[in-house]
Amino acid sequence: MLIVGELINTSRKAINEAVDKKDADYIKKIALDQVEAGADYIDVNCGTKVYNEVETMEWLVNTIQEVIQVPLCIDSPNPKALEAGLSLCKYGQPMINSITDEKERVEVVLPLALKYKAKLVALCMDDTGMPETAEDRMRVVKSLYAKLNAAEIPDQDIYFDPLVKPIGSVDKAGDEVLGTIKAIKEKYPDVHFMCGLSNVSYGLPNRKVLNRIFVAQTMTLGMDGYILNPTDKGMMGTLAASQALLGQDSYCMNYITAHRKGLYEE
Amino acid sequence: MLIVGELINTSRKAINEAVDKKDADYIKKIALDQVEAGADYIDVNCGTKVYNEVETMEWLVNTIQEVIQVPLCIDSPNPKALEAGLSLCKYGQPMINSITDEKERVEVVLPLALKYKAKLVALCMDDTGMPETAEDRMRVVKSLYAKLNAAEIPDQDIYFDPLVKPIGSVDKAGDEVLGTIKAIKEKYPDVHFMCGLSNVSYGLPNRKVLNRIFVAQTMTLGMDGYILNPTDKGMMGTLAASQALLGQDSYCMNYITAHRKGLYEE
Repeated sequence: MLIVGELINTSRKAINEAVDKKDADYIKKIALDQVEAGADYIDVNCGTKVYNEVETMEWLVNTIQEVIQVPLCIDSPNPKALEAGLSLCKYGQPMINSITDEKERVEVVLPLALKYKAKLVALCMDDTGMPETAEDRMRVVKSLYAKLNAAEIPDQDIYFDPLVKPIGSVDKAGDEVLGTIKAIKEKYPDVHFMCGLSNVSYGLPNRKVLNRIFVAQTMTLGMDGYILNPTDKGMMGTLAASQALLGQDSYCMNYITAHRKGLYEE
Repeated sequence: MLIVGELINTSRKAINEAVDKKDADYIKKIALDQVEAGADYIDVNCGTKVYNEVETMEWLVNTIQEVIQVPLCIDSPNPKALEAGLSLCKYGQPMINSITDEKERVEVVLPLALKYKAKLVALCMDDTGMPETAEDRMRVVKSLYAKLNAAEIPDQDIYFDPLVKPIGSVDKAGDEVLGTIKAIKEKYPDVHFMCGLSNVSYGLPNRKVLNRIFVAQTMTLGMDGYILNPTDKGMMGTLAASQALLGQDSYCMNYITAHRKGLYEE
């Protein structure tokens, strides 16, 4: 299981303010909190800073690495910001969030992945737009996998993101994602997965319930990576419970430890 | 989805007392509460009454049917009590809980299923005892299915119970059940499933969390029947959330209704 902490993102008000004030202490605290809560990677996203994204990315990556030694997930639509972030990564194998099968995106992101030997979040979309069905997604997966494989990106560095959409808009949206995970797992048994969780419940009440149940469902089919808020104790408890039930937790020790840490409170 | 309400069971203290006092009002209330909360069948189990189980079964079945019109699930290790209950069932198609692949059990329960055209909960165990792995369970499933099929029990009347055991004792116990569901679903696509939930979490803390996550996991693989307490709002909310995410709820209307009924409270 690979947990990417999602909190350092300038689309969040508190992070945006900290960036504007160059409040390094706040950024360091959020990075540290996520690692202590169990994040394996820290996502760094300042895509809202369209006028100074490169400088912001550099400042964030340097600031974060003053206090933590886990690898970073460099997250941007802007290739210059991606490269700025990747070039400064000091610990472990960096991750790029994300490549798609859009022609222009492949052209700029694939060379960066090779240059920095980065893991790649591979989003199931292409120049025709956002896919609807599992079949649409698999068309993108096959096309994108062929390019990554031809470029000698190892399977274990590929993290397919099946593109989770709200079930409140399209009631089969969850099921299409589950079907995609199953199909990818059958065809490419060595690749990994990554997805965000909050989209699925967008616009519906009791969103936490839906998000947690969706974690259990996707894990059952082999999903093994999530970008989420690791300080959400209920969600981390759900992950621990789900792993224990899937037989991925010897003697349920992680589950019992999670219980002692109070990981089931809201 | 088929929900069997489990509350009318003399192993529960309040039910045992009501039976001893012939408190028909209490039994009727519990039957009615379960139906109002969404039970499709009401389980009737007085197996602890070894000295007067037949009379108790008759009294319970008659009493319950004074207030509700849903079918009953007649639940007993004793063939005489099974027949006593089945012979009095007035509404819909009764269910027998349960047949196993034990020689003696097949001999007495199969004729009852045919005589009363009953649905059958088919438990994955035989004369060699309780199975450990998914493979062990599938051996029993194949042997028992062959007998039921030869007797012309229709697939849609068979409800395989994969026999859920505590993950606290054997850490792969949950995963073996999930593997069994997958294997049954592939080999016999038209049969149904039934299982209880509380065994899986026995001996561990935060049992509700584990039970709910296990519902989501088993539903993802095709489990479509549970014997549970339908007045547990959190559990019924979990079922609604899971169905919505699996694309089994048009426009998420049941989920939204469940939310309005407060089905996510503890």
